[in-house]
Formats: sequence, C-alpha cells, structure tokens
Amino acid sequence: MSDRPIGIFDSGVGGLTVLKEVSRILPSENIIYLGDTARVPYGIRSPETVTRYSFECTEFLLRQDIKLLIVACNTVSAISLKEIQKKVSIPVIGVIEPGARAAVNSTKNRRIGIIGTEATIKSSAYPKAIKALDKDIEVFGLPCPLFVPLVEEDWTDGIIARLVVEKYLKDMIDKGVDTLVLGCTHYPLLKGVIQDVMNNVCLVDSAIETAKVVRDVLKSRESGVSGQGRIKFYVTDSTEKFVNVGERFLQSRIEDIEKITLEVR
Amino acid sequence: MSDRPIGIFDSGVGGLTVLKEVSRILPSENIIYLGDTARVPYGIRSPETVTRYSFECTEFLLRQDIKLLIVACNTVSAISLKEIQKKVSIPVIGVIEPGARAAVNSTKNRRIGIIGTEATIKSSAYPKAIKALDKDIEVFGLPCPLFVPLVEEDWTDGIIARLVVEKYLKDMIDKGVDTLVLGCTHYPLLKGVIQDVMNNVCLVDSAIETAKVVRDVLKSRESGVSGQGRIKFYVTDSTEKFVNVGERFLQSRIEDIEKITLEVR
Repeated sequence: MSDRPIGIFDSGVGGLTVLKEVSRILPSENIIYLGDTARVPYGIRSPETVTRYSFECTEFLLRQDIKLLIVACNTVSAISLKEIQKKVSIPVIGVIEPGARAAVNSTKNRRIGIIGTEATIKSSAYPKAIKALDKDIEVFGLPCPLFVPLVEEDWTDGIIARLVVEKYLKDMIDKGVDTLVLGCTHYPLLKGVIQDVMNNVCLVDSAIETAKVVRDVLKSRESGVSGQGRIKFYVTDSTEKFVNVGERFLQSRIEDIEKITLEVR
Repeated sequence: MSDRPIGIFDSGVGGLTVLKEVSRILPSENIIYLGDTARVPYGIRSPETVTRYSFECTEFLLRQDIKLLIVACNTVSAISLKEIQKKVSIPVIGVIEPGARAAVNSTKNRRIGIIGTEATIKSSAYPKAIKALDKDIEVFGLPCPLFVPLVEEDWTDGIIARLVVEKYLKDMIDKGVDTLVLGCTHYPLLKGVIQDVMNNVCLVDSAIETAKVVRDVLKSRESGVSGQGRIKFYVTDSTEKFVNVGERFLQSRIEDIEKITLEVR
C-alpha cells in the first residue's frame, strides 16, 4: 500500500512549490506530478472549464494507481475540490483548507488578506474556509494577474516587481490586514518583495501547510513508509520549457519526465 | 457567394484588433469570430500543440461555411499557416506576411525589429518572410511575455508599462532598428508607450496590413459585396469575460456571442 505513489496535479509548473515541500518532509514517498501545460493557466477560466480540466487530470492520475491525491492548484482547489472528492475513493487534499487554517492561527487583529488568481478570488473559497473556522474574521480578496507572468519571467526582484506588488497590495495595507495568504502556487517566489512591501504582515505559504496535512493524513493511514523517493513528471505540452522553468521552482533537477495527452479524441 | 461570412480565429481576444480593422474597411461583410478562450494563450505552447488547436479552430469555422479564413493569431500564423492552407480550399490569410511586407516597405536602414510571443519569435516566421522579400535586411526578434498581461490588466500607460517596455526594448534601441513590427495582436494597445520609448521608429501594426490584404483578395474574387455586416462571436470559455475585455479591444459592443466546445470527446 505505502509503496504506491502520491499524485499531485497543477495547471503547470506552479504546483512544484507544493511538490517541493511534500518531498522535503516525506522524502521517501514516491510521487507522480502532472502539469497540464497545454492548457495552463486555469486561473483565468470559468468554473465549468476548470472543473472539466481537473477531472481529466484526476482520471489520469487514478490510472497510475496513486494512494492519495494532492490538488496543488489553488484555482482547482477553490472551484472543484468537493466534486473531485465525491468522484474518488482515495484521500484528496487541496491547498485552500490548510492555508486558511494557518491564516486563522496567525491573525491577531482578525483581518486576513487573500491574493490569488481571478478564478480563486471570485470563488470565495478562502473566505468560506476561514469563516467556517471563525466567523468573525474579516477577509479581503484580491486577484493579482501580473504576479504569475512576473515569476515566470524571473523578474522577482528589482523596481518593476516592487512597483507591481505595491500597486496591487496598496489596498491590503489600507485594509490593515496582519496576515496575507499567498493563494497561488507561483506567489511564494515573490515572497521577498511582498514581505518588503507588507512588513510586519505574516505571509502564509499554502504549499508548506498542505505538505504538513499530507504527512498527517498518511501517518493516520499507514504504519510505515517504504517508497524509494522516486519522482515522475508528466506534462501535456513539450517537456523542454517545463524543465527550464520548473527546475527554478523546484530548486532541483527534473529528469524522469514524459509528455501525454489528456483530451480523449 | 459573397454573402457567405469571413471566418477569423485567434487564441482569445487579441484577434479582435484584426476584426476591428477588417470590419472598418469592409463594413458590409458578414464575419464570424472564434476565440479559443478555454485554451488561451497559444504563444507559450509548443508548435505541435499550437497546430493541433488551430486545426480544431479551422474545422469549426469551415463548418460555418466561410468563404475566406483569417488566422488573426500571430503565433498560429507563424507556426501552422502553411499546414492550414494545405488542408482547406478557401483562401487563408495570416498576419505575418502582411506585417513583414509593410516592414520591408518602411525600413530605410534595413534593420527591422520583431516583438511577439515566445512561440512566434522562436519560429523565425517574420525573419523568413522578410528575407524572402529582401535577403539583405537584418532582423532582430524579441519575445515580450509581460505585454499581454499588461494589456489584459489595462495597464497600458503609467510608470509600470513604461518600465516594462523600456526593459524589453532597450536591446532593440541598441540594435538601431528603424522599424518595429508589433507581432502580437495585443501589442497595438501598447502602441502609445512603445512609440514614446522608441521615438523615430516606425511601428508596424499587422492588423491594419492584414485587413488590406483581405480586401484585395476579396476584390480579386468577387464582383460586389452583398453582406449585411453581421458579426457573430464564438468562444470556448464563458462569454462574460470575453465581452468585458473584448469590447475594449474592439471599441464597440459584442452582442451576438455563443459558447462552444472544440475538443471532440
């Protein structure tokens, strides 16, 4: 049982920030990562389209005999997590609930900011998850569409990154939040400049929180872990660009990688 | 014959800059526009994936009985135009050749710059088209990935747009080009700031040049035009966002619009 891999999927490279944390705290687990790079990004799409794509990713990973599924994409976690959980019998873990819980534990003034894709913010998934834990907390959501291209272009410091972050987050500073959830897997790569602009604000990285939940769930189901720490990657577009950008996200080499097609023709 | 519509497709809203010019100089033509918004953007994808998607767009438009096909997307025009032309019997017009011709006519010092998506620049389609007209012209290509999100966010002036444009185009200034092709349908919306940064450089807008070629091709095939100037829109994701952003591109209302699915299941 425990030799079976953990499955992780994301619209592209972003979920590698989650993979990195999972493999750091569970180094002997075998992991299969799927990035739907032929259709990235999901965060600009409608809920119907996000759900359709995420079902196709889930079905592919189930065919690889995974023991647990991590939905590393904030957009999919926000929109389709419950529907995915209904469809499958293995545990399915998204990134919203762990991030929401960490934010609730962190806030002192009960004012939390959420930044993410348009689709994630529009879904109100974070506010709902936070208010389910403490209904008196005020939550402020804000989409930051320029952050993903900034990160993919590797412009994560310097004057342009600083001005873009200031322009988006001015509102969050005015709202007086003391905790800010980085509600998109790309955003941790902008953590430095975000922290500079919002000093004294606690930044919550959902990737780290999600990895902890995965560890707890596996611990509750298995007596010992016996994988070999193998990591296999699948992408839906060419492997070359994924490897180039992905190795920066992962901070290690991407070797065992294969291109697949998800759409059934 | 001439009552049949012109078909235009693009990965998303960008091709509306081409539609706008076509309907401006051919106001009585009926036009069908398809934006593959469920899979936008194409410019970050591999040639194989771009070709697969563009065939699906083409097949959909052929089923609408179009008389002429405009490939409004620079990325598709750069990668798949010849393959599309091989597959269909009606005229197929891309945006590369008209832009290249206008650039060759404009340059005095025979140094031309091309800016576009990663996929367009990597294809070398513009340099090939330019050198086919004049092999002694020097061509310099540069991808500008931040330009599309800047335009979609409507940050087309101000300090951030200025710094991003300066950062990308510094190299073009150093190269001493006297003509710059806006080789992506979004870029004309940044024309103001690009012209400020590259003053005395002639900017070529492929949309305008393509519309002229369409007019000439139709004139050579038809004795008179008898359409009613109807414009019908199809998109592959929700219509709402397309209408919001698209009306800014088109500078007029988008009314007759329908969501479709291109992938055959």
